Amino acid sequence: MGEIGQNMMALEFDDDIIVIDAGLLFPEEDMPGVDLGIPDITYLVENREKVRAILITHGHEDHIGALPFVLPELDVPVYASRLAHGLISVKLRERGLIRSARLNVVEPHAPFRLGCFRIEFFRVCHSIPDAMGIAVTTPIGTVIHTGDFKIDHTPADGRAMDLAAIARLAGEGALLLCSDSTYAEVKGYTESEQVVGESLDRVIADAPGRVMVATFASLISRMQQVIDAAVRHDRKVTVVGRSMSNNVKMATNMGYLKAPPDTIVTLNEARRLPHDRVIIMATGSQGEPTSALVRIANGNHRDIEVEPGDTVIISASPIPGNEKVVSKTIDNLFRQGANVIYSRIATVHVHGHASQEELKTMLSIVNPRFFVPIHGERRHLVAHAALARSMGIPDEHTFVLEDGDVLALTPEEGVVIGNVPAGHVFVDGRTFWDGDSSVFAERRRLAREGVVVVAATLSASTSEVLADPEIASFGFVELNESLELFEKTSKKALTSLEEMGPSALTLDKTRARVRDSISKFLHAETGRRPTVLTVIEYI
Amino acid sequence: MGEIGQNMMALEFDDDIIVIDAGLLFPEEDMPGVDLGIPDITYLVENREKVRAILITHGHEDHIGALPFVLPELDVPVYASRLAHGLISVKLRERGLIRSARLNVVEPHAPFRLGCFRIEFFRVCHSIPDAMGIAVTTPIGTVIHTGDFKIDHTPADGRAMDLAAIARLAGEGALLLCSDSTYAEVKGYTESEQVVGESLDRVIADAPGRVMVATFASLISRMQQVIDAAVRHDRKVTVVGRSMSNNVKMATNMGYLKAPPDTIVTLNEARRLPHDRVIIMATGSQGEPTSALVRIANGNHRDIEVEPGDTVIISASPIPGNEKVVSKTIDNLFRQGANVIYSRIATVHVHGHASQEELKTMLSIVNPRFFVPIHGERRHLVAHAALARSMGIPDEHTFVLEDGDVLALTPEEGVVIGNVPAGHVFVDGRTFWDGDSSVFAERRRLAREGVVVVAATLSASTSEVLADPEIASFGFVELNESLELFEKTSKKALTSLEEMGPSALTLDKTRARVRDSISKFLHAETGRRPTVLTVIEYI
Repeated sequence: MGEIGQNMMALEFDDDIIVIDAGLLFPEEDMPGVDLGIPDITYLVENREKVRAILITHGHEDHIGALPFVLPELDVPVYASRLAHGLISVKLRERGLIRSARLNVVEPHAPFRLGCFRIEFFRVCHSIPDAMGIAVTTPIGTVIHTGDFKIDHTPADGRAMDLAAIARLAGEGALLLCSDSTYAEVKGYTESEQVVGESLDRVIADAPGRVMVATFASLISRMQQVIDAAVRHDRKVTVVGRSMSNNVKMATNMGYLKAPPDTIVTLNEARRLPHDRVIIMATGSQGEPTSALVRIANGNHRDIEVEPGDTVIISASPIPGNEKVVSKTIDNLFRQGANVIYSRIATVHVHGHASQEELKTMLSIVNPRFFVPIHGERRHLVAHAALARSMGIPDEHTFVLEDGDVLALTPEEGVVIGNVPAGHVFVDGRTFWDGDSSVFAERRRLAREGVVVVAATLSASTSEVLADPEIASFGFVELNESLELFEKTSKKALTSLEEMGPSALTLDKTRARVRDSISKFLHAETGRRPTVLTVIEYI
Repeated sequence: MGEIGQNMMALEFDDDIIVIDAGLLFPEEDMPGVDLGIPDITYLVENREKVRAILITHGHEDHIGALPFVLPELDVPVYASRLAHGLISVKLRERGLIRSARLNVVEPHAPFRLGCFRIEFFRVCHSIPDAMGIAVTTPIGTVIHTGDFKIDHTPADGRAMDLAAIARLAGEGALLLCSDSTYAEVKGYTESEQVVGESLDRVIADAPGRVMVATFASLISRMQQVIDAAVRHDRKVTVVGRSMSNNVKMATNMGYLKAPPDTIVTLNEARRLPHDRVIIMATGSQGEPTSALVRIANGNHRDIEVEPGDTVIISASPIPGNEKVVSKTIDNLFRQGANVIYSRIATVHVHGHASQEELKTMLSIVNPRFFVPIHGERRHLVAHAALARSMGIPDEHTFVLEDGDVLALTPEEGVVIGNVPAGHVFVDGRTFWDGDSSVFAERRRLAREGVVVVAATLSASTSEVLADPEIASFGFVELNESLELFEKTSKKALTSLEEMGPSALTLDKTRARVRDSISKFLHAETGRRPTVLTVIEYI
């Protein structure tokens, strides 16, 4: 077995490979301009005749998002729960791939075979309905893959995990457990969604005016809790923002979201109601600049502005990297006069991953011979491995793998026998790059100091400079400062071109000389070091 | 009174103004390339004959860092505690400003007069020694300014806050309390440094090999705790990195850091000792790319590489915005084989700010008529105001101010009567910009998609294009992809220039046409939208 990218894993036995999940990676700030990262599936493509299927644990982007890129390369069936199937269908339809795709809905505990593998999905709790773990019975034992999970005995949708069923699947002890490590650093238990329901209810009960609730568009259980509170406190719910509206419609049609008739109203209907009868649900809990909530916070939403008495609930925690923009959004909502309730000051959100005691419960129930912590950064995997050690799994039976590592298992031992191409390729427009492309370094440099262009026209025969070099810039100085500076820069460029004279310098060398001289000149003048691009035309 | 910038406040009575702190702002990622932000002191400069002094609460950069920019504009004395005085002196000396500066060392409870004000500093606990709050007695009552503080009854340096003295200064109740809000969202008490000392001691006692401790260069109490643990467990300490070495020397000379002879050794001496007798102290706890710790984590430090058995303690929490780089550093240290201990998994750090119960204690002791929460984002100030409300301070006596707001106080009432220029100006090289300069938007745009330059030479008389337009780019494509694309781009530019013909278009319009046509062309070819700069020379 091996992890091919974050949230994409392959299990191989003889002539059969199955793949679990096909996740997208959202690129980091050191890769400016990149839209998304997709797993490197070189190994799967090279072995495509062996690949039996892709199994999907749940419908989050970081588990299904790469399918539109993977399926054209690997024409294999996809197995997913009903909701995940719905979300995948939308995605493939948008890209015109739905016709050729072979999508199958799976139900928990309805086993089927793929090559030598027996597959059985089981229900887990997570921050999206219909999340599943997968039991894969191989000729040498059973592999339990938890997907993303937490153990919530009182989830919002009432569908608790069937721990006894997982114990049955693991039998006398599984061969291998692959278990979610995202919150392996956190002691204790993740609180139940019930606690959030109670908090939301209390805040909504006490709110003197309108209530706005911002959460993830995929967090359908949270929307259900908001709708339930609305019904109890005689409020109507209106949904703002395209992605959330679409999800509410889809989830209602598929039966994942239940609202009495007339509970969900349009924004226009809501505007005719007294403020204390309205709840607005919106995205923007991550501070996304174009989201409804951020526009409202900045006072530039077309239809909604904060009024005294408004309560805003941010029912989400910032995803790592979003801390600052979320914090700014909260600050601006306060500035607009709203009372803002967020996860640092009230339990209006719980996340979807198991904490240490739940992870230990899973280790105990599955009682695996071998253990591979999955999902999370290296330090989360290490923390999870430490938990396994504390429960008596010997270190040589636990494998903290890097993407691409190939772990060979027999009933007796496990060995990392090498690695295959893995990691992610990054998509910018229609171009694919690996993570250390020089283009990213160039963009980071442009971001720091901007760019200055020096363009000169020279005589092809005499190398004589035919006109004063033109200077242009972007991200370097403000227009009003630039006039005088650019005149001097042009003179300086002229001087350094003339100093070279009709010499035997190559074009590259001429360009480099001008660039160096202008770089030094601009640093002396401004204390900054913009990127200098030199363009020379010979006519 | 009014806040002029983050961590700079002015108190004015008739013809006297005193200023408290002069902080730098570290710029955010939406201002790429900017070195630092300094407060806008327009108001103080316009009223310079009234300004009696700048009082400094403690020696952190965000309280003293703007002095080199402020003092040349405002030739006033500076009052600071001994350590802050030392740090300010270093800073001013580096910039050749020490001679003209009038620096005074203050001791706690040694009152002095400035105009109509009576000033008395009092000791507070914070993450740097010699931190002070300030009691300013005005003709209409006493103002208590806490500076940054926490209430630690067992601090590492043994210098607890004298709460009784603060109560005496406030007398029957202060006129105004200005109190640190940074952790006003956090329930309970901030743990004592004693807890950290115990954790560090335990980790160091149990470590099988070398121990590296990364922390802030200014966190002298933490260094003392590390040195104490080293002595107890028969280890030597070596300090890596310039800023930390300098601070250790300075703090030792000034008596803030105490180490038995031969406890602190050079790196070379440390290398000759067995691993289990060595502690390495270094900076890098914030994932700073050029720090010793990050180089070690990336395996490219000149002198130190991780070996099996090494323990790394990150004795700091990530400052907001640094979460991702810190997390990456920890991951890489694990990859190098170190055992990493960090604040999420063990109490190896406590921060320096009061939590809710301590803030309430301060409110209770000072018993102010008016309250201005200071230090922190808007949401922290709002949370602090809510604490004051819960203790019975009426809302109309609490003022959540924006930078520049002017609050007028009489013994009876407070009114925000207007505002003065405030906020920060940002320094890039030697240029000063305000925060929304178009240059920053341009840099963000460059970062997303890079830049493409189109340079063309036209006949001044006939507008004829004299040579194929030259194309250059940066941060747009990799070199190997660019050749063919740029040939096509040049042709496209030629076509659009020729289509315009010898028309009466202005230079600006010609440039805009070429830019638009090339933008569209490149988007169609690549799916991306680089910034297109068009340079046209007429000869």
